[in-house]
Amino acid sequence: MEHLVLHYAPDNASLIVRLALEELGLPYETRLVDRSAKAQDSAAYRRLNPAGHIPALETPDGPLSETAAILLWLVDREGRMGPQVGDPARGTFLKWLFFLSNTLQAGLRLTFYPDKYIGGAAEAQAQLRSHMQGVLAGHLQLLEHEAQAGHDWFGGDEVSVFDYYLACCLRWCALYPELNAGWFDLSAYPGLQALLSRLQDRPAVRAAQRAEGLGETPFTAPSLANPPEGSAL
Amino acid sequence: MEHLVLHYAPDNASLIVRLALEELGLPYETRLVDRSAKAQDSAAYRRLNPAGHIPALETPDGPLSETAAILLWLVDREGRMGPQVGDPARGTFLKWLFFLSNTLQAGLRLTFYPDKYIGGAAEAQAQLRSHMQGVLAGHLQLLEHEAQAGHDWFGGDEVSVFDYYLACCLRWCALYPELNAGWFDLSAYPGLQALLSRLQDRPAVRAAQRAEGLGETPFTAPSLANPPEGSAL
Repeated sequence: MEHLVLHYAPDNASLIVRLALEELGLPYETRLVDRSAKAQDSAAYRRLNPAGHIPALETPDGPLSETAAILLWLVDREGRMGPQVGDPARGTFLKWLFFLSNTLQAGLRLTFYPDKYIGGAAEAQAQLRSHMQGVLAGHLQLLEHEAQAGHDWFGGDEVSVFDYYLACCLRWCALYPELNAGWFDLSAYPGLQALLSRLQDRPAVRAAQRAEGLGETPFTAPSLANPPEGSAL
Repeated sequence: MEHLVLHYAPDNASLIVRLALEELGLPYETRLVDRSAKAQDSAAYRRLNPAGHIPALETPDGPLSETAAILLWLVDREGRMGPQVGDPARGTFLKWLFFLSNTLQAGLRLTFYPDKYIGGAAEAQAQLRSHMQGVLAGHLQLLEHEAQAGHDWFGGDEVSVFDYYLACCLRWCALYPELNAGWFDLSAYPGLQALLSRLQDRPAVRAAQRAEGLGETPFTAPSLANPPEGSAL
């Protein structure tokens, strides 16, 4: 694999891609997207990702974005961290990868950034956040149920991109929204909790932890990032 | 390809999968999911798709769901209707496929079914719908811009699953929410409009039109479905 450049902000969705790159042992450079200066809205960043979301990954095939798309592209290029085309498990893996992207992560965004969906009225934002937290509990129950199903790509022996994607979403459930945290109780989901415990001591997680200031227990008992550079929000 | 069974409701997301199956010339059976009886919430349907969303596709690899996952699975199995693994266009195709799933279609759901996200208060629902219609216009502008970029998988000579996915989303923009239609003006997006005109007379579209009662101009000037069986809502 040729030159890869990850445009990241600490503890943003770019963390998921960093974990996959570390786990795959691929060389990559990083470029901080300075959220405190709204660099994700700059013309330069919009050339990488017109939607202005973090991450973007510069690749030999051009700049890629959309976390799940990058993860799947890596799985297929490297032949690891998820079922390949032709594997009978591929379809179910894709189904739950899209579920994380369009349902779980999309739901988290509604809860963390309600203003982007409903505008500036505080009462309406609170209604959206509160209703969505109930909806998200239902999504997490579906995932807990699936964790018991024995998929190789979900808490299996070879860690998958799905595992890391879900682990980061659960981290954020515990931390955000910063002023309204506490709605999420990991112990209600023992299968997901077990996944997080197994992942936490992997070298890839330790490397990401150092790079982004994620603390000692970034998945099972997370604290807000204290990054060496940049800002999570 | 062995036996495929599409669980569908007229003019639901299952339409996108039907169009892909027709375009690929794959034999498939259909099973109506009777929305008027909330069959998508039945225990039998939840066994196919625990999230209760339509469609589900029974395949030799088990029941699949999530529209975009099914589309991608078909692309990879059949080697058509989208760039394959290893093609330099694959990453960008994946990026925009995920964008349709987690941003455009997810945004449409917020607008069409605000109660699922914010609960029963009519005023809050109206705020969410109205704000999201502005956000969606921005998403459609990004797609309009990309339509000009000359991707083979976006309005190219070989129709792609992306083309049909976007076309159905644009159809629904024109029709829904039924009591608040009229927020969307296709003529503001000439690149997307040209795509819809080219797609509309394909045999796959004609077949879907007959099966689901979609009218003569289902993409460029759609009317509400008048299906031979079942109900769209």
